[in-house]
Amino acid sequence: MEVQIAVAKVNKYATSESGDTLEVVERPNGGLSVVLADGQTSGRGAKAISQMVVRKVIGLLAEGVRDGAAARAASDALFTDKQGKVICTLNIASLDLHSGTIVLTRNNPSPMFVCRGEQIDRLGEESVPLGISRNVRPLITEIPVEPGLIIVVYTDGLTHAGERRGQPIDVSETLRSLLDDQSPSPQALADSLLAQAVGLDDNRPADDISVLVIKVTSRDGDNVRRMTVRLPIEGNRRA
Amino acid sequence: MEVQIAVAKVNKYATSESGDTLEVVERPNGGLSVVLADGQTSGRGAKAISQMVVRKVIGLLAEGVRDGAAARAASDALFTDKQGKVICTLNIASLDLHSGTIVLTRNNPSPMFVCRGEQIDRLGEESVPLGISRNVRPLITEIPVEPGLIIVVYTDGLTHAGERRGQPIDVSETLRSLLDDQSPSPQALADSLLAQAVGLDDNRPADDISVLVIKVTSRDGDNVRRMTVRLPIEGNRRA
Repeated sequence: MEVQIAVAKVNKYATSESGDTLEVVERPNGGLSVVLADGQTSGRGAKAISQMVVRKVIGLLAEGVRDGAAARAASDALFTDKQGKVICTLNIASLDLHSGTIVLTRNNPSPMFVCRGEQIDRLGEESVPLGISRNVRPLITEIPVEPGLIIVVYTDGLTHAGERRGQPIDVSETLRSLLDDQSPSPQALADSLLAQAVGLDDNRPADDISVLVIKVTSRDGDNVRRMTVRLPIEGNRRA
Repeated sequence: MEVQIAVAKVNKYATSESGDTLEVVERPNGGLSVVLADGQTSGRGAKAISQMVVRKVIGLLAEGVRDGAAARAASDALFTDKQGKVICTLNIASLDLHSGTIVLTRNNPSPMFVCRGEQIDRLGEESVPLGISRNVRPLITEIPVEPGLIIVVYTDGLTHAGERRGQPIDVSETLRSLLDDQSPSPQALADSLLAQAVGLDDNRPADDISVLVIKVTSRDGDNVRRMTVRLPIEGNRRA
């Protein structure tokens, strides 16, 4: 099998810095974790918050702390620092090679989607962001790694796309039509979801948007790990 | 312009864990850094060392510490911990959007290559790994970001490929023939260099091998950041 992870990420229109931070870290006992945080508001302040949260979580995961405990610790740290005045959403998607599962941790009102073949499940249970109060609990979902599995995670910039002109995005429907295609790559899925959202915002995203897609394939090739990052730089743009 | 980063990474034959650790981190003032470390020997012990070094460096970079200072700090920490008995190579490649440059930091006897058009420069000045003594100095090279620039960085598994059967790889020559092709993608370059090395080792790599390729293109498309990770999982394989 092969686990493929793809990310597409864009800044709020005319903002040089994204409030979303996404990083990938190796787990000390094998596998890796993708950590995605979205700090309240946008621009430099939001970036500092989401970077602080991601850094905290990654540091703990690297020490072998479990995902849920890492999320709680980051929430406590944020609450202590900001007294509940600043919040930050968090998603962790971990490939755990010991248990052969993908562990999804969510402190984010935005739902996640889990797709297998024709079946598209929306995981939309109520979930609160980090830093909103003491004792914030993450929602944790554990899914066996098997070929055909597709997981879609995103920040609220996607959820709110199109609202400005009264045409909010229907993520579930968009996903269904994308999956009708011949086995789309995770990057194609992430790119298409993002493009749909940006289009609904008249190409001027109303918020930072990050889309993460994980796909498990039955590919049985070499044992090479691969990573590609593509970073547009134009003028003084940062993300 | 667009900066594209590609990595291809394989474990030593019959080893479940790579002694090489590679991570990407956002820089607090814009841009990102790729940090690659290769711990002495292979397997679990080497992994712990290279992870410790990468974690130390990434933590410092995230605080805004400059690359050279981060490398020195990691070396001092390793020397203090292991009294010079364990060493670790380090390469940092940073895209600094403020200065518009790529900053290459090297504590690794293995050279790097910088290519522009037909010109292939081998940066092979003597450089010692971290942890070998007090006051280890990194070599730092700063290169303006411009379309056509290609940078190739790797761990010594590539350098030593083929030595077992007396046919060591000629990285410079391999690179020249690859660059003769019609503008190869950085992933194609990394994959081809790795495949060449693995082939010379009779498909049983004698060491962990990591290849990092950075390419600057004049691509003027959307402002979307993209990332793809591909992780083969077969049996209990970890990397």
